[in-house]
Amino acid sequence: MTASAPHGAAASTLPLDVVILAAGKGTRMKSRIPKVLQKLAGRPLLHHVLSTAAQLGARSAVVVTGHGAPEVEASCARLTPVEGPIALKFVRQEPQLGTGHAVQQAVPALGDDGRVLVLSGDVPLTRAETLLELIEAAGPDGEQRLALLTVELPDPTGYGRIVRSPEGAVRAIVEEKDATPEQRAIHEVYSGILVAPARWLKAALARLANDNAQREYYLTDVVKFAVADGLPVVTHRCGDALEVAGVNSPAQLAELERAYQRRAAEALMAQGVRLADPARFDVRGRLACGSDVDIDVGCIFEGEVVLGDGVQIGAYCVIANARIESGAVIAPFTHIDGERLGVQVGPGARVGPFARLRPGAVLGREVHIGNFVEVKNSTLADGAKANHLAYLGDASVGERVNYGAGTITANYDGANKHRTVIEADVHIGSNSVLVAPVVIGAGGTVGAGSVVTKDTPAGALTVARGRQVSIPNWQRPQKKS
Amino acid sequence: MTASAPHGAAASTLPLDVVILAAGKGTRMKSRIPKVLQKLAGRPLLHHVLSTAAQLGARSAVVVTGHGAPEVEASCARLTPVEGPIALKFVRQEPQLGTGHAVQQAVPALGDDGRVLVLSGDVPLTRAETLLELIEAAGPDGEQRLALLTVELPDPTGYGRIVRSPEGAVRAIVEEKDATPEQRAIHEVYSGILVAPARWLKAALARLANDNAQREYYLTDVVKFAVADGLPVVTHRCGDALEVAGVNSPAQLAELERAYQRRAAEALMAQGVRLADPARFDVRGRLACGSDVDIDVGCIFEGEVVLGDGVQIGAYCVIANARIESGAVIAPFTHIDGERLGVQVGPGARVGPFARLRPGAVLGREVHIGNFVEVKNSTLADGAKANHLAYLGDASVGERVNYGAGTITANYDGANKHRTVIEADVHIGSNSVLVAPVVIGAGGTVGAGSVVTKDTPAGALTVARGRQVSIPNWQRPQKKS
Amino acid sequence: MTASAPHGAAASTLPLDVVILAAGKGTRMKSRIPKVLQKLAGRPLLHHVLSTAAQLGARSAVVVTGHGAPEVEASCARLTPVEGPIALKFVRQEPQLGTGHAVQQAVPALGDDGRVLVLSGDVPLTRAETLLELIEAAGPDGEQRLALLTVELPDPTGYGRIVRSPEGAVRAIVEEKDATPEQRAIHEVYSGILVAPARWLKAALARLANDNAQREYYLTDVVKFAVADGLPVVTHRCGDALEVAGVNSPAQLAELERAYQRRAAEALMAQGVRLADPARFDVRGRLACGSDVDIDVGCIFEGEVVLGDGVQIGAYCVIANARIESGAVIAPFTHIDGERLGVQVGPGARVGPFARLRPGAVLGREVHIGNFVEVKNSTLADGAKANHLAYLGDASVGERVNYGAGTITANYDGANKHRTVIEADVHIGSNSVLVAPVVIGAGGTVGAGSVVTKDTPAGALTVARGRQVSIPNWQRPQKKS
Repeated sequence: MTASAPHGAAASTLPLDVVILAAGKGTRMKSRIPKVLQKLAGRPLLHHVLSTAAQLGARSAVVVTGHGAPEVEASCARLTPVEGPIALKFVRQEPQLGTGHAVQQAVPALGDDGRVLVLSGDVPLTRAETLLELIEAAGPDGEQRLALLTVELPDPTGYGRIVRSPEGAVRAIVEEKDATPEQRAIHEVYSGILVAPARWLKAALARLANDNAQREYYLTDVVKFAVADGLPVVTHRCGDALEVAGVNSPAQLAELERAYQRRAAEALMAQGVRLADPARFDVRGRLACGSDVDIDVGCIFEGEVVLGDGVQIGAYCVIANARIESGAVIAPFTHIDGERLGVQVGPGARVGPFARLRPGAVLGREVHIGNFVEVKNSTLADGAKANHLAYLGDASVGERVNYGAGTITANYDGANKHRTVIEADVHIGSNSVLVAPVVIGAGGTVGAGSVVTKDTPAGALTVARGRQVSIPNWQRPQKKS
Repeated sequence: MTASAPHGAAASTLPLDVVILAAGKGTRMKSRIPKVLQKLAGRPLLHHVLSTAAQLGARSAVVVTGHGAPEVEASCARLTPVEGPIALKFVRQEPQLGTGHAVQQAVPALGDDGRVLVLSGDVPLTRAETLLELIEAAGPDGEQRLALLTVELPDPTGYGRIVRSPEGAVRAIVEEKDATPEQRAIHEVYSGILVAPARWLKAALARLANDNAQREYYLTDVVKFAVADGLPVVTHRCGDALEVAGVNSPAQLAELERAYQRRAAEALMAQGVRLADPARFDVRGRLACGSDVDIDVGCIFEGEVVLGDGVQIGAYCVIANARIESGAVIAPFTHIDGERLGVQVGPGARVGPFARLRPGAVLGREVHIGNFVEVKNSTLADGAKANHLAYLGDASVGERVNYGAGTITANYDGANKHRTVIEADVHIGSNSVLVAPVVIGAGGTVGAGSVVTKDTPAGALTVARGRQVSIPNWQRPQKKS
Repeated sequence: MTASAPHGAAASTLPLDVVILAAGKGTRMKSRIPKVLQKLAGRPLLHHVLSTAAQLGARSAVVVTGHGAPEVEASCARLTPVEGPIALKFVRQEPQLGTGHAVQQAVPALGDDGRVLVLSGDVPLTRAETLLELIEAAGPDGEQRLALLTVELPDPTGYGRIVRSPEGAVRAIVEEKDATPEQRAIHEVYSGILVAPARWLKAALARLANDNAQREYYLTDVVKFAVADGLPVVTHRCGDALEVAGVNSPAQLAELERAYQRRAAEALMAQGVRLADPARFDVRGRLACGSDVDIDVGCIFEGEVVLGDGVQIGAYCVIANARIESGAVIAPFTHIDGERLGVQVGPGARVGPFARLRPGAVLGREVHIGNFVEVKNSTLADGAKANHLAYLGDASVGERVNYGAGTITANYDGANKHRTVIEADVHIGSNSVLVAPVVIGAGGTVGAGSVVTKDTPAGALTVARGRQVSIPNWQRPQKKS
């Protein structure tokens, strides 16, 4: 019968080891990338599962690899789940002889003293709360039970059915290919996720046989042993089929991507973030928002992004690894990517439309960055402005500087990058070039169209341009036929 | 029983006063902004309700304010509902002791001679037609009836149920917290909207008590008084639950935003506008379209926008306060915002992709504005072109002018803005700067890379640039390790 | 009764002539464009139907035109269905006296020896497989049957009902306006599509009368003649109502557009293409993808586009008539349109964000095109870079060239276009202008802000700019009140 995990029950203190099945090829993905490394919300599927395992406070995660094992292991090594410490172990399953065989490979890496939770590396959306409920269903620490996560599907085709006695006790999980017509009519199916006492599970795994239609070792056969052994088998019913849905094709990947994003949108809205359209919103990483944040349609957030109180993000912005401080307004079509260096946008700043902030762009209070302006590895002090068609690279720009339309910092001499320093209150005329390294002295003015190659005195007007001459009655070229 | 308002019945001539409940805090919005000022389609919720009231031909709208009252009142003062004249009055409800208490505050502002319609300031999508049907259900002018707008909900949890006699006569509205299990099973609920005879309602309000679970004065209790008084209580069933849905959370706000936009898209398509995807289309204001207008995916229209016959709007355009004349083609990623000055795009003009038109941009017939070009407060006469990476600010550009790639009008001397005049048939070379105030004489040519600081003669070739010299065998800097 | 076409039956060898009804006005479209020329996925509705007819291996397609006949005929003449050869004939129906009358006009253009398939020019989504099944249902070559494509609709209002005998044999198709209440309760409706023996159909068409509610000649009346003649009438039930849905309004056009795009997305995902959101994806033409292609949200593909293995397309790209080779990365907000000349992006190239590639842009291996850069009719050899705010038009750029920020090729002298040649390993400084025709010699350097009007020697540093002077203690203009 279905065990309804009592909410608020004391968390188990038994050690928990997690086995994650990650050996599959994913033929239907039609990809050279191992299936568990396919990305959902910008992260490999397997990383989502590892994050969830870390949230449970598990002692270790044993990843069973197979197809693309070196790639999968290397990918996990690069991962630091911030959700908690967890010992990461790898075992290889070669060849792949079924789910039972997969978990058998993990046996040497598992303790005898606790419980084992089996997860799938291609099932990314299981909530930690659901798994904690399953662990609770497995009973208090002193008791021994096998707990299965199940789900009710309108169309159960292809899934292992939960076969019960007339009294409701679980008797077995029967795979589609081995099921009778009556069993195929059962809608409650096994999710692929179970919790078992470690010592018992190890012994049960040793008893698996492959005398079935597929000639595979099914993990699900341990249910029969539990029944035979008199080990109670309980189930926890998961209400949301998406939590236990696996990825086998690009279409399923896209479906789960949308489910993930819907969840992300709902969570942010519940915190007070206003989204113009939750169905046109993507977060691939972590988005932290202050109060009264407005996000218009079609925005994408990647990596670590922080939006302060009252920040407004216009339509179709792509923002990655950036901190936008309170009251800043980001106009539509703004592209911000801080990569490793990060980007900072100061309080009350206005950026865009059609602006691009690259790594190391640091904008002070009330800075304005306008259309077709690119800023890279540059600091703009409070009140500085670069409003039109300009490039600022490797520059330090002082307070209240006005950086003219079409002006460029020539920071690259073909071999090395140099810095441009523009001191406070400078006015740089349009279509100028500042050839770095160069310092424009405070309060100075650079005339439009100047090419500045030497430092300029403070307070001076500097020009570097040709004299204007006119040739009267000039005959413009004629259109050639 | 349900009164089905006869279509085509003569409109009531009784004066109508509207009470709008706008005192709520909206805790679940988690916002510093009063709930009724949260924006839907770019306008505060309350303004939507006031517009609807104005469409009904109501004599007055009495807005009951509370949380954020000064802000709410100031916001309404800035509103001019174009739908019709309506006298706007404010009363404050402090503290907030329920809906009945809210309407009690409005009593001194209401006439005795007509009817009172009670609306909620956070219910933005009620159609005027639905309210006119409700008013019709309230009976001909000579009759006295209390008319309730109701809706059938699959899940009525949380709403006041319409309790009827076995014969179908309305007996009461019972709030969730005061309802019996049988009453909770009723799916017909009160929408929060009613029409009542003014004199009777005033008396009924005076009889309200707060002897209920919430210790509040419920407006819905007037139904009991009507039953006791023998005043007929009729209902009008609203077929679309979205019409009576309120906003209590960002998720609900987003849901109603989408419903609003779906309606807007359907209305425009019914007029013949072709939308590539009605689910990716946003109007925040008024969009008037001629015939054979095509709008590609992801476009946003704000303020007042007029699109002439045969106009084509490419994907991901953001267009505000602009008039685009017939046959003009706006390529993708174009950002137009006329703000108060407006923007005009002439017949057959081509704008974008990646173009930005700012306030006061006025483009004549067949003008071309290309990629990475910004135009502000400038007039371009018929056939003028600025196709690449350019800035035109405070300029008057004559017919057939070709404004070169990378060219800038230096309109700002650091203190004041000046105008640039480019007369007809001028050709401005690439990467030039025109330092305003300056006039480029008709038919003249400005050589590429020139900085023009003085007026140029008509028909002349003007250059202002350095002499070209080459230093042979030049050693470029080496990359530093 | 419903004939279930046996799968894998030998294809008919009887000649097939297709009649396409394309005379309707489409009043509800509210458009000056004839209805069958309204565009779905960038192509006229009628072209979709003609493509399907060509896929069937039909001998001829007889298009019955009426409203806007010359325009419709001219549009078809421009069409080359790549799906197979098909003889295209036009007949005019003037005035329009019903569907039977329409097919009557086609009679002289039809052979006697085969079968006739009747399609509607405003029904764009019928699958060729469905029609082949219908043809199979029409029986082996030796047999004579009338085969109707039907569909089961939850709401059949407005459609012709399939009236059957108690035994299930088709007796008639009855139009809405002529139907009894019992007949209106039938949910199986006629799709407008049928297959008939040619000789019999011609005779049957001659027997049509217009003694009905609409005073029209109904094609559907031939069913009665078949019944009277003892010609077996079979049906093939189409499972997807969208396959037989017609376009009568912009709302229906948008609905079918979305259905088309959903299909296109599903087909690509089944091939292994990863789409971040299948609901925000548009293909208007042909998109061929290699393996491990990732396409982010909101992308639009037009004309003929080929994406090589491992290509990544960022969010909100618009790409038309282009070949992107393996490993290239296209960043968000990139606009590529090759028109007739095409665009090529080489292996491992990086383009965008905010880049625009126009006709004749040919990028070699590892070329970088950055933000606010436009490339037109120019070749960039392997490893060349133009990263910031630049224009390259009519240029040949050598290997490893670095083309500076803000630099422009002045390719247009006001009358003619000229070429710029930049030889290998050149470094062009920022904000330069290269006035074509001009050759920058290999390995040379152009100083920032130079205007180059003459060819430069290989290996030389070339500068063309003014001398820098400073005027100390310069007084900037004061703000006028």
